[in-house]
Amino acid sequence: EFGGLTPLEKAETPNLDRLAAEGITGLMNSCGLGVRPGSDTSHLSIFGYDPVKHYHGRGPIEVAGIGMDFKPGDVAFRGNMGTVDDDLTVVDRRAGRIGDTTPFTKLVDGIKIEDVEFHVKPGTEHRCGVIMRGPGLTSEVSDPDPHKVGVKVLDVKPLDDSEEATKTARVLNDFLKKSHEILKGTSLNEERRNEGKPEANFVLMRGAGYVADTPPFEKKWGLKAACVAGGGLYKGVAGIVGMDLIAVEGATGKADTDVEAKFNAVVKAIEAYDFVFLHIKATDNFSHDGDFEGKKKFIEKVDKVAALLVERADTIVIVTGDHSTPCSLKDHSGDATPILISGPGVRTDDVKEFGERACAKGYLGRIKGLDLMPEVLNLIGKAELYGD
Amino acid sequence: EFGGLTPLEKAETPNLDRLAAEGITGLMNSCGLGVRPGSDTSHLSIFGYDPVKHYHGRGPIEVAGIGMDFKPGDVAFRGNMGTVDDDLTVVDRRAGRIGDTTPFTKLVDGIKIEDVEFHVKPGTEHRCGVIMRGPGLTSEVSDPDPHKVGVKVLDVKPLDDSEEATKTARVLNDFLKKSHEILKGTSLNEERRNEGKPEANFVLMRGAGYVADTPPFEKKWGLKAACVAGGGLYKGVAGIVGMDLIAVEGATGKADTDVEAKFNAVVKAIEAYDFVFLHIKATDNFSHDGDFEGKKKFIEKVDKVAALLVERADTIVIVTGDHSTPCSLKDHSGDATPILISGPGVRTDDVKEFGERACAKGYLGRIKGLDLMPEVLNLIGKAELYGD
Repeated sequence: EFGGLTPLEKAETPNLDRLAAEGITGLMNSCGLGVRPGSDTSHLSIFGYDPVKHYHGRGPIEVAGIGMDFKPGDVAFRGNMGTVDDDLTVVDRRAGRIGDTTPFTKLVDGIKIEDVEFHVKPGTEHRCGVIMRGPGLTSEVSDPDPHKVGVKVLDVKPLDDSEEATKTARVLNDFLKKSHEILKGTSLNEERRNEGKPEANFVLMRGAGYVADTPPFEKKWGLKAACVAGGGLYKGVAGIVGMDLIAVEGATGKADTDVEAKFNAVVKAIEAYDFVFLHIKATDNFSHDGDFEGKKKFIEKVDKVAALLVERADTIVIVTGDHSTPCSLKDHSGDATPILISGPGVRTDDVKEFGERACAKGYLGRIKGLDLMPEVLNLIGKAELYGD
Repeated sequence: EFGGLTPLEKAETPNLDRLAAEGITGLMNSCGLGVRPGSDTSHLSIFGYDPVKHYHGRGPIEVAGIGMDFKPGDVAFRGNMGTVDDDLTVVDRRAGRIGDTTPFTKLVDGIKIEDVEFHVKPGTEHRCGVIMRGPGLTSEVSDPDPHKVGVKVLDVKPLDDSEEATKTARVLNDFLKKSHEILKGTSLNEERRNEGKPEANFVLMRGAGYVADTPPFEKKWGLKAACVAGGGLYKGVAGIVGMDLIAVEGATGKADTDVEAKFNAVVKAIEAYDFVFLHIKATDNFSHDGDFEGKKKFIEKVDKVAALLVERADTIVIVTGDHSTPCSLKDHSGDATPILISGPGVRTDDVKEFGERACAKGYLGRIKGLDLMPEVLNLIGKAELYGD
């Protein structure tokens, strides 16, 4: 598209280039060479949490991202408020892209089946998070959400022979039945029917994951950390590792996001935190759409605002991606992402621009996500001496 | 200081540059990315011994460095001959920087408490090594050395609930008492008192470590190895892995060391050994003092003598550092050190000079200390075929 250049290479990025020129650069495979990472596993790795040990499915990340209280032993799910007909066939997985599910989640939040409490809270748009809390639960159960319309909601099945899986499936099936009855009967859905809208009458759940005892970022690395992000997944991973979530008006996790507001929030957060994680999502969206030009322009937009982070005497800036999403592929790939680390006390290398090819020649070489936090601790002078 | 250049980059090093140009280069983090290594853990790693498994504290390295006989099961300590007053308050941790402790260590060497023998031998200056040998000992005991003056010598305490720790602490406390009585009563200290010098009346011990069964370098890598070094720690690590220690007159481990004598000893040793480890210490000393110019000049001094190792048809030369010690930081850091490997049969890359930035572009990329010995075996044609 761009004569073999990537959108990042093609984009005019004077601020990122300056950070690269004044710092060290390299290439990173967040989850290891050739691994095609999801955004959850890649962020865990970058924060120094081996996903082999610390990744337990999307459910816990979803509930953390919408700010639900979770604790070890919980089983968590992503959910949609969806529409089913009388024989439980899925008609609309998003209840007509219902905007705010709060009135509906309120009706089913707190339901208790046997000794298990269900917590249900609204997410963005049609989404919600569901937590099962009680003794003897497991995430080894199948999804009730069939992931498509025109078929019936699936009976939840245990995925192993354990008592826990049998119990979790039984309780969950009962919850789905009971919550459906409540939602079906609410006057809110009568109103929707009258307005010709699909009812929000079923909690379509998927991505069961158990909530593990994850050591908080501040304890693990000695750095008080905050997150500025639009997308729920990124806030979720930050939440799982115990970062504070900073709410920013206009941060949407899409191309219409208020990049300036996010950077301003970061600059403000630096005063109160040791480590601030800023996530920019839209470049990935453009990639999934195969939109080279859109991605390039968005990178240029981000670069302009990034001027706020250049030449700060008190801050080390790290710029990288959690994974590559080539526009030509329209999907995540296992290709390495460029990385730069720049700021007071950081060496420089000979690389003068931020891009895939340029950073291949940098001082950092080719690193993994798990390598990053130890390097950061070293650069800020917090690495403990190993040996004598 | 040097316009952003490191002392190595600023220094005129035609011989090192030539070795780099004729060989392969890279960057090494001896103990892994971002890890700030001690000199003991880093050397173990470079010799191919994972410190997680093979590092057991400084004591064993100290006694190995002064050439004491040690064997698995021993518990070893670093020690000083120090001065305490009548109520055991430390007055001088080095007994007036006493030059040679031999007459004093002789008095307490061989003391037996219960079934434990104490071996005490002189180290450099005020230092000595202490070995406890007997059944049921452990290194899980606290230091008697309070590490400062004006406070009392500390009672040794067991650090866990084991019988071994209780015994080791009890026996060690008895030894300290008994040896103090002997040293207090010797006419040597009467002489020192008469001369107005602080008595050498207490063995200040610290850094307990147990001596593990470390596979010898020759057995592990098939290479008969020798060490040329001034500093005790480096001789110690070499001793722990079973290298022969070659004594070189004038090798002090300081800036006044006889670099030429050390290189001559290496050239001679190459005839009798497969692997010769040469350690140069003073660059690190200059770094700890923040002396950019001193470090640069010392590097140039080493480079001149390094001509002896250029263009040897029979020798592969490896040049690297065990860790980075930036003059700006005056302490060890986790930054990578440049490395070159040059000699017959070794590839070349495009890197023409030996320096941090230049070597970032080399063939080796960014390696760990543990990667080095397998690469060496490969380059000398001794790597075994893995598979078929």
